[in-house]
Amino acid sequence: MQLLEDRIRRDGKVRGTDILKVDSFLNHQIDVELLNALGREWRRLFDGCGVNKILTIEASGIGLACIAAQYFNCPVVFAKKSQTKNIAGDVYTTKVESFTHGRVYDVIVSKDFLCSDDRVLIIDDFLANGAALEGLIRLIGQAGAVLVGAGIAVEKAFQPGGSRLRQQGIRVESLARIKSMDEKTGIVFC
Amino acid sequence: MQLLEDRIRRDGKVRGTDILKVDSFLNHQIDVELLNALGREWRRLFDGCGVNKILTIEASGIGLACIAAQYFNCPVVFAKKSQTKNIAGDVYTTKVESFTHGRVYDVIVSKDFLCSDDRVLIIDDFLANGAALEGLIRLIGQAGAVLVGAGIAVEKAFQPGGSRLRQQGIRVESLARIKSMDEKTGIVFC
Repeated sequence: MQLLEDRIRRDGKVRGTDILKVDSFLNHQIDVELLNALGREWRRLFDGCGVNKILTIEASGIGLACIAAQYFNCPVVFAKKSQTKNIAGDVYTTKVESFTHGRVYDVIVSKDFLCSDDRVLIIDDFLANGAALEGLIRLIGQAGAVLVGAGIAVEKAFQPGGSRLRQQGIRVESLARIKSMDEKTGIVFC
Repeated sequence: MQLLEDRIRRDGKVRGTDILKVDSFLNHQIDVELLNALGREWRRLFDGCGVNKILTIEASGIGLACIAAQYFNCPVVFAKKSQTKNIAGDVYTTKVESFTHGRVYDVIVSKDFLCSDDRVLIIDDFLANGAALEGLIRLIGQAGAVLVGAGIAVEKAFQPGGSRLRQQGIRVESLARIKSMDEKTGIVFC
């Protein structure tokens, strides 16, 4: 998506060859007008797929998911990260390793908010190793819900998550796919 | 606000006399249509105040803030909670005690995204003891920005945060104010 690629080129900050900071418009400060453009694009891509729930994970996916949900007329559910050992109540739960933070989280969704009638679109800001996305997919599986696909803002296509998920037949629509990046020479999109 | 009070009466779950669960529509599953109604109401209340930035805190404030920001045509900044001892980079930071989680968090905002030109509206889902709100107000103070006020979805008016802030001259607009609640007898609004 040209609009997002242009914005990443203009305002994204590359650190080394694998860190991209987009915190001026996507995940610390948020440009809500840009988010609306992304939401409309996911709607166009997943039109006719019967999406009736959007699933994301706290924290930076929540804004994207809520704005996008306006174009699908459906609720958002955000999975919660917990380091609590004892998970209370009736929840679906799985473990997700965060490479950024070097931790393993329990990720949970209440059984009240994900069920076998749901046709779920996952929305998230980044796809790199795919650990978070695979965790959300496991939760959808536990609920017996249908995974329609995943709408991602920025995919680091030089990391293995996207390829591995597509090989499993999962529809992943990333609006900007980065082939390579370097602090000195900049970003190359796919 | 009648719409929100009605929704809390219908779908909120009272536990004991001080816990209100609104996770079916506000902070786990999110009813984006309801959030739009709240956003429009804050816009009406803070019309003409020159708001050019909305500040919230992760995670459950983010959806509310992003939807509301559409009515103010301004960006959202969400403060990040961190338990990291060493905060890296140029950030404003303060400590906030979470009564819910029994922890003290470092709460941070990058200096790039809050400045003395900003007229800031704080948006959050709950106001009870006021600790999170006061933390955000300190960050706004550190940046030399102007605090326009706070838009809160649900205020537990039987807890001291709202009164204390209003006594300091801070404009707090809570769309549902709970006077008392009880698992057996239900909720009384102010």
